[in-house]
Amino acid sequence: MAKLRGNALVAQSGGPTTVINSSLCGIIEECLKSGDIELVYGAHNGIIGVLTEDLFDITKESPEVIRGLRRTPSAAAGSCRYKLKNPQENRRDYDRILEVFKAHDIRYFFYIGGNDSMDTADKVAKLAGEIDYELRVMGAPKTIDNDLAETDHTPGYGSEVKYLATMTMESGRDTEALYTFDTCTIVEAMGRNAGWIAAGAGVAHRNTLDAPHLVYVPEIAFSIERFVADVKQTHKELGMVVVLASEGLKDDSGEYITTQKGQLARDSFGHVQLGGVAETLKNIVEQEVGLKCRYNKPGTAQRNAMHFASLTDSNEAYMVGAEAVRHAVKGGSGKMVTIVRESNNPYRAGTGLAPLAAVANGEKFLPREFMNEAGNHITDECRDYVLPLLKGEVPIEVGPDGLPEYVRFERRKVAPRTGKTYQLGG
Amino acid sequence: MAKLRGNALVAQSGGPTTVINSSLCGIIEECLKSGDIELVYGAHNGIIGVLTEDLFDITKESPEVIRGLRRTPSAAAGSCRYKLKNPQENRRDYDRILEVFKAHDIRYFFYIGGNDSMDTADKVAKLAGEIDYELRVMGAPKTIDNDLAETDHTPGYGSEVKYLATMTMESGRDTEALYTFDTCTIVEAMGRNAGWIAAGAGVAHRNTLDAPHLVYVPEIAFSIERFVADVKQTHKELGMVVVLASEGLKDDSGEYITTQKGQLARDSFGHVQLGGVAETLKNIVEQEVGLKCRYNKPGTAQRNAMHFASLTDSNEAYMVGAEAVRHAVKGGSGKMVTIVRESNNPYRAGTGLAPLAAVANGEKFLPREFMNEAGNHITDECRDYVLPLLKGEVPIEVGPDGLPEYVRFERRKVAPRTGKTYQLGG
Repeated sequence: MAKLRGNALVAQSGGPTTVINSSLCGIIEECLKSGDIELVYGAHNGIIGVLTEDLFDITKESPEVIRGLRRTPSAAAGSCRYKLKNPQENRRDYDRILEVFKAHDIRYFFYIGGNDSMDTADKVAKLAGEIDYELRVMGAPKTIDNDLAETDHTPGYGSEVKYLATMTMESGRDTEALYTFDTCTIVEAMGRNAGWIAAGAGVAHRNTLDAPHLVYVPEIAFSIERFVADVKQTHKELGMVVVLASEGLKDDSGEYITTQKGQLARDSFGHVQLGGVAETLKNIVEQEVGLKCRYNKPGTAQRNAMHFASLTDSNEAYMVGAEAVRHAVKGGSGKMVTIVRESNNPYRAGTGLAPLAAVANGEKFLPREFMNEAGNHITDECRDYVLPLLKGEVPIEVGPDGLPEYVRFERRKVAPRTGKTYQLGG
Repeated sequence: MAKLRGNALVAQSGGPTTVINSSLCGIIEECLKSGDIELVYGAHNGIIGVLTEDLFDITKESPEVIRGLRRTPSAAAGSCRYKLKNPQENRRDYDRILEVFKAHDIRYFFYIGGNDSMDTADKVAKLAGEIDYELRVMGAPKTIDNDLAETDHTPGYGSEVKYLATMTMESGRDTEALYTFDTCTIVEAMGRNAGWIAAGAGVAHRNTLDAPHLVYVPEIAFSIERFVADVKQTHKELGMVVVLASEGLKDDSGEYITTQKGQLARDSFGHVQLGGVAETLKNIVEQEVGLKCRYNKPGTAQRNAMHFASLTDSNEAYMVGAEAVRHAVKGGSGKMVTIVRESNNPYRAGTGLAPLAAVANGEKFLPREFMNEAGNHITDECRDYVLPLLKGEVPIEVGPDGLPEYVRFERRKVAPRTGKTYQLGG
C-alpha cells in the first residue's frame, strides 16, 4: 500500500491499568522510528481531548518521560468514559472528530482501550472511508477485566492479578495469625461481569492454608445458602476463611447481590457502578455463620499497582502498542492488535490482528471449566492459563524518600486549528 | 548479674505487621547465639499458647525458615487479642502462665507487641518476682499505629506507611486520569485513635498534583462543614480530589463519625472496631458536594505488604528483638527495647530501654504541629519525621509463579508437662 505521510494521534480510554502507559510508550517510540509519521499528538483524556481539540505534542516531551512511561501506572495522557452514540443517531461527534483530524493532518489514530473504545475507533475508521479522508486507525487492547474478544488475554490483566493475588495472600497471613479472633476476611476484586480477576488471583492459593480459600465469580449464580455452607465447612477445616469475591456477583435471577442497597449509580456507558459486595458478604458471615469478619477493598489501587507489576504484562502492553504502529505504517487499518499465546511451557506469545468491530461487540467470560464444580474455587486449567502472565517484576525507580517515582507529561498544548469550540454530549 | 540458664519463650501479640517476624527472627537468632539459653519455644497465638500450653520448639525449625522470617509478613507464631484481667481481679491466668513457665523451665520471656502486651509482660514479671521464680521478661515494640510511649517510633510503622503512601499515590494517578469522571477518591487508613498512619502516608503528596490532597486524622475534630469546604476548594483548584482519612475520625464531641451506623462491634479489649469512614466520606462528597466518588479500603493488606516493605523498618524490627535478648542475657528484665533516633540527616537510630509499665500505660498521639493549621494536611515537620523510616526495600523471594514466597513454621508441638488443660476466659 502507498506510503501515508502525516501526523499520528494517540489516546487512552476507560479505566486505567498498571501498564496502559507501556502501550502508549510502544506507540510513541514506534511512531518516532517511522519515517512516515511526523508529529505524535496525544489527546488529553481520550476522545474528549479530540472533541474539544485539547491535544498536546508528545514529540516535545523529554525522552526521560517517554521512557518513564513503562514504569508509570494509570493513563498518562488522561482517560475518559465518554460514550459516543451511533452515527445513525448522532453524527455530530464523529463529524467533529474528523474535523479535528483534518485540521491537524492526523493520518494515524491509535486508540488504547476496551471494547467501547474499539467501537469508537471502528466507527471513526468507517466514516473516514465514507468521506474519502485517508486515515489509518488501529486499536491496542487494554483492560484489567480480560474480557475482550479475539485476544488470548489483555494487557493490564497480568499486573492486576499479580498484585491482587499478592495482597490476598498477605491478607490471608493476617487472618491466619489472628484466627482466634478475626476469623474471616473478605477481599473484594474488581470485575463487573466477568470473573477473570477474582479467578486469576485465586492462584495465590498454593496450598490448603494459603488464601484465598474460597473464590466467587459473577458467571456462577451466587447462592447465600451455598456461601454460608462453604464458609462453615472451610472454617471447620482450617479455623479461618479468606474469601475472594468479584464485585459483580449476581444471584440466580441475574441481579447483582448488592442491588438491594438501591443506591447504585450508573456510569455514562450505562454500566452499573458496583461496590459493596465485600460488605454484603461480611454481613452474611457475621449474621448467618456467626464468625467475626473483616473486609479489604483495594479498589482502584489494584489496577495501578506498579510497585509490584508483572514484567510479562508490561512487555506485552508495549508489544501491542508498537505492533499497532508497524501495521498502520504498512497500510493496515481497522484492526486491533491481539495477543496470541504460542506456547505455554515455556510461555511464548506473539501478536495477531482482529477487526475492530469483532472486538467491539464481543465480551469474553471466564470458561466454566476454570472454576471447580462447586463454583467456589479455581481449577488447574485456570492456573495454567493465568500463571505465565504474572512472571517478572517491572523495575521501578524509588526516590530518595523511599517511594516510587512516576513520570508525568508536560502536556504542551497544540494550538487549536478548527477555530471552533465544541460542546460535549450534544 | 548471675548467669541464668534455661529455656526461652517468645510470643507475638495483637495486630500483625509486615515486620513483626523480623523481631521474632532477631530474638531467635540472638537466643541461639547465647550460651545460656537452651531451647527457644514459641507460643502459638501469643499468650493463648502459653495458657493452653500450646508451645512449639523453634530450635527444631529449619534455618531457611528462620532466615525467611525476615521476608514474611504477619505473625508466624500466631497472634491473639486476649486481654488478661488485673491480677487483683483474676489471678488465675497469671498463675497458669507461671505454672507453664515452670513446667518448661522458661527463664526468658520475650513478648513482641503493643501496650496491652507490655502490660501483660509487666504483670507476669512482677508476679514471678513475688513468688521468687527467676524469670527475665523483655518486650519488643510492635505496632503499625506508632502510638507507643517511650520509643521514637515502632517497628511496623515504616512499612505500613511506605505501602499506604504508595497505594495512595497510585490511586491518585487513577483519579487524575479519570478526573472527567471519577473525580474524588477516598482512601481509608488504619488508625483507631492516633493519626500517625494517615499523616505518615501524607508524604506521598510531593507536589500539588500528587495524592493525597487532603489528610484527616482522629486527633483533630472532624467537621463535615469544613470537609465539604475543603473538597470543594481542592476540586476547584485541581479538578480532582484524593482524600486520605483515618478510620477513627471523630467529631468535636469525641464520637466516631461512623458511630451513627450503630453496628460497631467491640473487640475483646473493648476497643471499638471501626470501618466505614471511607464510605461515610464518600456519601458526604456525593450528597453534599455533588462529585462522583469512589473509595479504597486496603484493610489488613496495608499492614502485611511485604512485597513493598521498608528495609529500615525491617532492620530496626530485627534490632529491637536481638537487643531484647542481649539485655536479658546480661541480667536485664522488665523493660521494653525502644528505638532512639540519634540523627535525622543522615538518619541513624539505636536502641534504648523503657520500663514495661511506662509503655503499658502510655499512648502517643500525633503532635499537633505535624498537621497544618487547617487540620487537612501534614507539615514539613511530619515529613522529616516520617521519611527516613521508609527507606529501602526488603528483598523478597518471588516464586516461579511470579508471587512472593513466604515461610511458615512447621510448629512441632512440645509435649505438655503441666498435666492440665486450661479453660480460657475464666
